[in-house]
Amino acid sequence: MEKIVSLCKRRGFIYQSSEIYGGINGFWDYGPLGAELKRNVKELWWNDMIRQRDDVVGLEATIIMSPQIWKASGHVDTFADMMRECPVTKKRVRADQVEPQSGTVYVFIGVLSDPEDGKLYHHDTPETDLGRRVLEDYVKGERPKNLVALDVIKLALFARERLKPFNEQRSPEDLAALANNLALKIAEEVNRTVIKILVPNGKPFESAQKKAIEYAEAVYRQKNSWPVGWESYPVSSSQDFHPESGFELGIARPFNLMFKTYVGPVESEDNVAYLRPETAQAIFAQFKNVLETSRQKVPFGIAQVGKAFRNEVTPRNFTFRSREFEQMELEFFIKPDEVVEAINGNVSSVSQLSTLNPQPNWGWEAWHKYWVEERIAFYEGIGLPRTTLEEYWQKPEELAHYAKACVDILFKFPFGTQELEGIAARSDFDLSQHERFSGKPMGVFDEELRAAWTKLEEARKGELSKCYYEARLKYLTKMGVEPAKAEKEAKDDASGLAKGQYIPHVIEPSAGVDRLILALICNAYSEATETDDKGKTETRVILKFHPRVAPIKAAVLPLLKNKPELVKKAQEVRDLLRPWMNVFYDDGGSIGRRYARQDEAGTSFCVTIDFDTLGEKPELKDTVTIRYRDDGKQERLAIGELLNWLLPKIR
Amino acid sequence: MEKIVSLCKRRGFIYQSSEIYGGINGFWDYGPLGAELKRNVKELWWNDMIRQRDDVVGLEATIIMSPQIWKASGHVDTFADMMRECPVTKKRVRADQVEPQSGTVYVFIGVLSDPEDGKLYHHDTPETDLGRRVLEDYVKGERPKNLVALDVIKLALFARERLKPFNEQRSPEDLAALANNLALKIAEEVNRTVIKILVPNGKPFESAQKKAIEYAEAVYRQKNSWPVGWESYPVSSSQDFHPESGFELGIARPFNLMFKTYVGPVESEDNVAYLRPETAQAIFAQFKNVLETSRQKVPFGIAQVGKAFRNEVTPRNFTFRSREFEQMELEFFIKPDEVVEAINGNVSSVSQLSTLNPQPNWGWEAWHKYWVEERIAFYEGIGLPRTTLEEYWQKPEELAHYAKACVDILFKFPFGTQELEGIAARSDFDLSQHERFSGKPMGVFDEELRAAWTKLEEARKGELSKCYYEARLKYLTKMGVEPAKAEKEAKDDASGLAKGQYIPHVIEPSAGVDRLILALICNAYSEATETDDKGKTETRVILKFHPRVAPIKAAVLPLLKNKPELVKKAQEVRDLLRPWMNVFYDDGGSIGRRYARQDEAGTSFCVTIDFDTLGEKPELKDTVTIRYRDDGKQERLAIGELLNWLLPKIR
Repeated sequence: MEKIVSLCKRRGFIYQSSEIYGGINGFWDYGPLGAELKRNVKELWWNDMIRQRDDVVGLEATIIMSPQIWKASGHVDTFADMMRECPVTKKRVRADQVEPQSGTVYVFIGVLSDPEDGKLYHHDTPETDLGRRVLEDYVKGERPKNLVALDVIKLALFARERLKPFNEQRSPEDLAALANNLALKIAEEVNRTVIKILVPNGKPFESAQKKAIEYAEAVYRQKNSWPVGWESYPVSSSQDFHPESGFELGIARPFNLMFKTYVGPVESEDNVAYLRPETAQAIFAQFKNVLETSRQKVPFGIAQVGKAFRNEVTPRNFTFRSREFEQMELEFFIKPDEVVEAINGNVSSVSQLSTLNPQPNWGWEAWHKYWVEERIAFYEGIGLPRTTLEEYWQKPEELAHYAKACVDILFKFPFGTQELEGIAARSDFDLSQHERFSGKPMGVFDEELRAAWTKLEEARKGELSKCYYEARLKYLTKMGVEPAKAEKEAKDDASGLAKGQYIPHVIEPSAGVDRLILALICNAYSEATETDDKGKTETRVILKFHPRVAPIKAAVLPLLKNKPELVKKAQEVRDLLRPWMNVFYDDGGSIGRRYARQDEAGTSFCVTIDFDTLGEKPELKDTVTIRYRDDGKQERLAIGELLNWLLPKIR
Repeated sequence: MEKIVSLCKRRGFIYQSSEIYGGINGFWDYGPLGAELKRNVKELWWNDMIRQRDDVVGLEATIIMSPQIWKASGHVDTFADMMRECPVTKKRVRADQVEPQSGTVYVFIGVLSDPEDGKLYHHDTPETDLGRRVLEDYVKGERPKNLVALDVIKLALFARERLKPFNEQRSPEDLAALANNLALKIAEEVNRTVIKILVPNGKPFESAQKKAIEYAEAVYRQKNSWPVGWESYPVSSSQDFHPESGFELGIARPFNLMFKTYVGPVESEDNVAYLRPETAQAIFAQFKNVLETSRQKVPFGIAQVGKAFRNEVTPRNFTFRSREFEQMELEFFIKPDEVVEAINGNVSSVSQLSTLNPQPNWGWEAWHKYWVEERIAFYEGIGLPRTTLEEYWQKPEELAHYAKACVDILFKFPFGTQELEGIAARSDFDLSQHERFSGKPMGVFDEELRAAWTKLEEARKGELSKCYYEARLKYLTKMGVEPAKAEKEAKDDASGLAKGQYIPHVIEPSAGVDRLILALICNAYSEATETDDKGKTETRVILKFHPRVAPIKAAVLPLLKNKPELVKKAQEVRDLLRPWMNVFYDDGGSIGRRYARQDEAGTSFCVTIDFDTLGEKPELKDTVTIRYRDDGKQERLAIGELLNWLLPKIR
């Protein structure tokens, strides 16, 4: 990977964003070659998914949308990592990624008074009286409030007396420890009252005490506080303390991964908006608009390419997991299986699929299988051999509750085999959510279904309705709709079938552009070691991109820079090719060095204009040398044939 | 405009973002036709600016970058609208766009006590004593603090006595008014103490009083307050009150237009980041990386297309001024005039430019002129006739302080003639700012300059150095660098010339994609009124897009849907064209209706497959009808010629 990162920078594929300012973690810029490579990939996807098909149309929605969309999609509530926070520095760490710490834990039972909230217990109450009240409350199941250090000590003293008659066999030390533990346990439940600090081995108690004072000042806003030490014990490999500050981490809480901002001049809750964490939801939100304006009917798809943002806690693996990235997503809307069956009398079994040409009797399984194959073919078509890819069919227990199946297409990266794309069968979950949250109908009317339904036998109608009803009921129940309402709604939905109405299901092939670019670079990377005439060995890099994605399709090179006829001819060839492809003209340095530079840029073909082109050998007049990047082989071609020779290779 | 907005929605060019949730102000989505149109425009720009040239390369940087970039660019400090805020609702309005209000203004002199801050004056002080102290302070130029209502009354009473000996000729009422005004004036300077509320005519004093209580509760957090009425007067067309709440607006303050967010898990000042308000700055920040990795040398350009965000207070004119938009920007780096002169012995005079082919002796004026012409040619090439455009050369007093010239290219929109693109000569301002803020050198080394410099006469060296020195000194001084330091730095910069070093200047053609799309739609919009056989008159829309930008290049239409031979042939034609252009296949409805639908979508050509295509007239076998969108004219063409006939028209 290091070699690849360095090559990316050196050749202008990928730079760190804002590098002159020390960078910004999780953000990467594409330089001249990277930008071309990325454009090619996006363009090929758009062509393949939209322009080459009758049944998919494009969309280009905004990055900032109504926050309601993210409530409906579940992102506001559940798109989160579990994080634990240092109570003093407020720095957060991912709960599952805390660096283990070892040392001594010092426990303080808070400070001498607490300025916040009203006090329930007071340290000027006599110890027995206070201890008794605290314990009585505790036994009744009530939690004491706002215990301060002296309260805890008084509680421990009282507890010792209180426990004595029942523990006569214990030694006084043992009894004291028992009472102390009880007091500590109660104090811990009061939260905030107990401070635990991990100090690395070798550091003294005083450093813990200093931190406890810092804690009291930061958390209680208590100046001149006097933290009361209670006990200490060693720990090893604990994940409960902040690796930098040493304070015990708070409980794990969800931290939303959406970037938040405010739209309009007022920073109020009403004006919160999010940077989209995926492009898919815009497609669902605009589903009806597109359906009504595009002359499409189900099955059909809506596709989008665009930026998405996730405030990853630990961006990593170069551009693989970054905070700003680009997605290429298709939502392909299909008829629910009950509708397919009502219209066609059957639903195609996926195990017996004889063709991958869409058929009217395809249900979700066939469509899902179809899109997995289409997507793999896409990757093969841009130069990722099947052997570099893996299919991973998610196990039932791994699936999101609304998903019927999900296949991940993985690529063998140097840092591990990781996901390039997920292809999920998401049922009618998304459209249903937006229907419920927006109050706008998201279903379609299908004349074919309405006509077919009237011709069905009553028993069949009953079966299909029941099946549809149960699926709808399951969805509504899972979403927390109260039973009576859910039953009524599911019933209404099922009776809609007879009127030709249903909510489409969806198959979602969702790919990440940046990780695909990285996969293409990793896959293209190769080294050649060559020994020159003088016996000097040199290793150089060749990026073996498929010509369809290569940033530069052809380099046009006059053999010599200082021969005007060569230069003129070369420029003519450049201008011949340029309207049709990205061409690089280079007249600097020896021809061998220029070839090497192009190999490192991944240029598919070098076209050299030499003296034979000018007619030194008359039979070679107006021919050029084509040099292949991958094996360095050369052949001679007439300029007149050049364009037609190149075009099929790069498209 | 209404017709255009409605057409855009109806035909799937542009929808309101998040429409099912009531939309989000200032955000617009592109539907299937809009997305294709936009892609075409961006692709044509990229081709024209980058791929068709040797001297411009592309970049694709992130939207979120280091906030340091926006400090260097000046956006953090100065990219702001002046806004005035309602003190109670906190709603802001643009200072220059407050809707004028009329009615009665009620003035309250605050409430009876103020819980915040320490009190300097106290309403239990005897009135004469307090009044005297306040007035004494005021005369001394000190501002009283925290006057509450009773204080003001006491001050007024004292002032009346104090003024009496000097105003014996005045009536008691007149004297009272004078004293009241003085007290009020002092109270007003104390800010917060005087509440002014505009109440529409016809509403009673009580409604003002109720609002004054609301104010006291919201601003002073004072419950059970008693606002003291002081005076009232009528106003008309005042812009000093919030149009909704009626409260007097605060003073105008700058409101930054950048969307703010936080990167990483902690929402602290350290982690603030902005959504870029323009794409240009990324180009400057990556200038050195690109220079070092792309085999370019000055003059050369870096171009970028991408989203930018501005939290506009009042988005308007459909997609013209929205909060999320896309830019196409080029930064073309050139040699400073002193360098051009050192190398070439002269700088080309722009008035005598005989060619628009770049020459080595071009200075900034020639390059600026060149890019203005290039950009206008681009607009003409995608179908905006020169008559729809205007050039606006900014006057010297309108220019940004660092700019040497700026030309706006305007389009005649239905809502006014407005800017499509600005082409600015920005000197070396941007690179210099990033050099100062990042501490990284942003200059270039130019071997040609170094070599030329040694051959210059001493006097010439002196002149050019002085000129360069003065420009650098002017920049550094304007940026607030202290004189001694500025002089030293400017001297260093000037002596760099001899070593072949300088900071490039830049010409910046900066275009808005969305406003260009809107211009293209407005320009293409036309109506045709036709009378059918039955005498029925119908007006229909034709979008006369240039074929290069048209979302659909060709519609392929079999004459009849239910003739398999026609359908098969039509699909063959579709598949022949599809790899080369966006094709729409349509077999639904009468051929006339299908033509009309395509006219409304702006499809350049309709290709009809009829019985003659199948050989009904043998001489017409394998020919199709081409129908022109703009005039409905038709001609016959062999299928074999179709592609070569279409390609030059759409590219």
